[in-house]
Amino acid sequence: MTEARIRLVPGFSWFGKNIGIKDSTLDFGGILADVPCQAAGVFTRNTMPGAPVLVGREHLRNGLLQAVIVNSKNANVATEQRGVEDSRTICRLVAEQCGIDAELVLPSSTGVIGRRLPMDIMVEGCRTLKQDFGKTERHVEGFARSIMTTDTRLKLVSARVGGATILGIAKGAGMIEPNMATMLAYFVTDAKISASLLQPMLGRVVNTSFNRISVDTDTSTSDTVVILSNGLAGPVDPVAFEAVLSDMAVYLAKEIARDGEGATKLIELVVSGAQTAEQALLTAKSVINSPLVKTAIYGADPNWGRFVMAIGKVFQYSVNIAELKIFFGAGENRLMIDAGVLDRDEVPLEQISGELRKNEIHIEIVLGKGLHAEKVWGCDLTEGYVAENAHYTT
Amino acid sequence: MTEARIRLVPGFSWFGKNIGIKDSTLDFGGILADVPCQAAGVFTRNTMPGAPVLVGREHLRNGLLQAVIVNSKNANVATEQRGVEDSRTICRLVAEQCGIDAELVLPSSTGVIGRRLPMDIMVEGCRTLKQDFGKTERHVEGFARSIMTTDTRLKLVSARVGGATILGIAKGAGMIEPNMATMLAYFVTDAKISASLLQPMLGRVVNTSFNRISVDTDTSTSDTVVILSNGLAGPVDPVAFEAVLSDMAVYLAKEIARDGEGATKLIELVVSGAQTAEQALLTAKSVINSPLVKTAIYGADPNWGRFVMAIGKVFQYSVNIAELKIFFGAGENRLMIDAGVLDRDEVPLEQISGELRKNEIHIEIVLGKGLHAEKVWGCDLTEGYVAENAHYTT
Repeated sequence: MTEARIRLVPGFSWFGKNIGIKDSTLDFGGILADVPCQAAGVFTRNTMPGAPVLVGREHLRNGLLQAVIVNSKNANVATEQRGVEDSRTICRLVAEQCGIDAELVLPSSTGVIGRRLPMDIMVEGCRTLKQDFGKTERHVEGFARSIMTTDTRLKLVSARVGGATILGIAKGAGMIEPNMATMLAYFVTDAKISASLLQPMLGRVVNTSFNRISVDTDTSTSDTVVILSNGLAGPVDPVAFEAVLSDMAVYLAKEIARDGEGATKLIELVVSGAQTAEQALLTAKSVINSPLVKTAIYGADPNWGRFVMAIGKVFQYSVNIAELKIFFGAGENRLMIDAGVLDRDEVPLEQISGELRKNEIHIEIVLGKGLHAEKVWGCDLTEGYVAENAHYTT
Repeated sequence: MTEARIRLVPGFSWFGKNIGIKDSTLDFGGILADVPCQAAGVFTRNTMPGAPVLVGREHLRNGLLQAVIVNSKNANVATEQRGVEDSRTICRLVAEQCGIDAELVLPSSTGVIGRRLPMDIMVEGCRTLKQDFGKTERHVEGFARSIMTTDTRLKLVSARVGGATILGIAKGAGMIEPNMATMLAYFVTDAKISASLLQPMLGRVVNTSFNRISVDTDTSTSDTVVILSNGLAGPVDPVAFEAVLSDMAVYLAKEIARDGEGATKLIELVVSGAQTAEQALLTAKSVINSPLVKTAIYGADPNWGRFVMAIGKVFQYSVNIAELKIFFGAGENRLMIDAGVLDRDEVPLEQISGELRKNEIHIEIVLGKGLHAEKVWGCDLTEGYVAENAHYTT
């Protein structure tokens, strides 16, 4: 069962500590496996990826990883060849400390863009790594905290599948846009499962989880989702494994949307009755990304006309407004707006406003009689988002 | 010369008044020509256009108009066939009052979506139209005020071309997204110029003015740009006319961006050095619409990494970061960030912050050595946008 708590996975060590990149909060963390792991990863589609993404893609070539090293407070993006060399140097130092091959280390960095890593601090931080790593819950939590930037909450999840355990840890709150992996997330498992199975599986899982969330339409240059499998628990049913991994990824994705910068509400939106899967997804993204929909939900304003506007922004497909229905709430008592019914005095505005005051909002838009549906998650847009982002670098 | 003031155009009458659709501010206005005019219009690309847009497209079929009737506070959108009938009824009442054909009346409505027009009030408001119309500056200003919703300033402009005058009036502050006409704008002129010339000319003019602004990526269901030419001043050089009309449209478009909901700054962004015009425009839109860029500019935060991120969101084209340059400010003293230069200590962050504190910001992004460039306008994203839109219907 998928639960929002730490289950230790045999054969993996963790650390999280402060090395003073920006302030005194945790800013440096790592995962170390006792043995080389089968591994798979999905990275940002941003055409200006960070140096760690470039190095990570290269190190994942053979489907093998043994360690992950992450710093927050500086993304090492737009730092050119020197940034790539910095990432390689860190991998090499970690490898030396841990007695492994540098190509088995996946580097990640997250934080401000356009500044070189403070390499003197990084080098110093690597000096005691061997002692920093440990296998307790405290070590796992330290890692989870060390990768946070504007996150306000730990994002972790675990599950059992067959005789094996999977643990997933993520960060992300801003620069979040669906249709690609948009944050950092790490999964480790002791299930025995090959990289050649893991890579397409992770692609499918990411596509219906992290690729379906949005905070602000901005696509990070550092997005990375990685899974490491050390095989200690022996083989598992890959179908069952994928189902559990998918549940875990959806959980973490929703946690990221819920913790969107400044957000007060998680929005789950289903668009159904679409002519094609593309129409369903384009419409869902248009609505979940609309600033006017997001602010209306923030204000619990039952301004359903803004949904109509956002649906109509998908120029590629036409919708017959006579068939359009919008449902607010979950379960049997959900409230319906039938855009095809003329008497608008019957719209239950007060009750819709009540639904919108909850901190988890369920909305379904039925476009027509088509057979396709898509689900996405997002959050409201508040003054907090603006305030947080108007003064972030300095 | 294009000036931000009223020049009266012979042969046109105006009114603006309050009829109590929502409150006591001006909410009903009109333009009436002494004779049928050659006319052209461009309407929203939103697939759920308002009833007035449907009726307006139909009435413009023959390139002839004699009157425009506009109400604010209610958009008459998502009101189905009854909404269309309401718009037709208003056109018929205006026509009866003014002694013209109902098909020569272009209706517009702007305001909340999803409510029927209060037809008893509208009918009553039409009863005295004949006396309401007048030809003074006060009448023009009344019209300009009556079409405002969340606008904080009048948006009007006029110019002389040859022996003729052109006057343009616009409204718009929210639900503004480039790549289509996104607001209401009316131009009238006494130049003699045929509808068959006016229609393609207006398309070109809109494409480089109203189609290049963005407030919030949301595309209104009511967008309308119309021009009426009564021919009283005789023929003019169409090339000179188009140049002046284009200047006027750019002026009004910038006024709309500057007056974006909650905005404190107008942003003018040029993207040059692109491989294609599409790359230039996609990149310009990605940057001008990025919430993280918009909030950074609001906070005068020289966080140029966010520009890199937003440039990299255009997945269709790759950019060589070694060739990427970003200029802040206008004129010879503008500040450059050369993303290809490694020594980041030379980036003049303090001076860039100073530029970003101005209320009109000029930015140029040079992508590479390509020959294509595009210019767009937008505004910053502030707490004011959120506050204004979290509580708009009620």
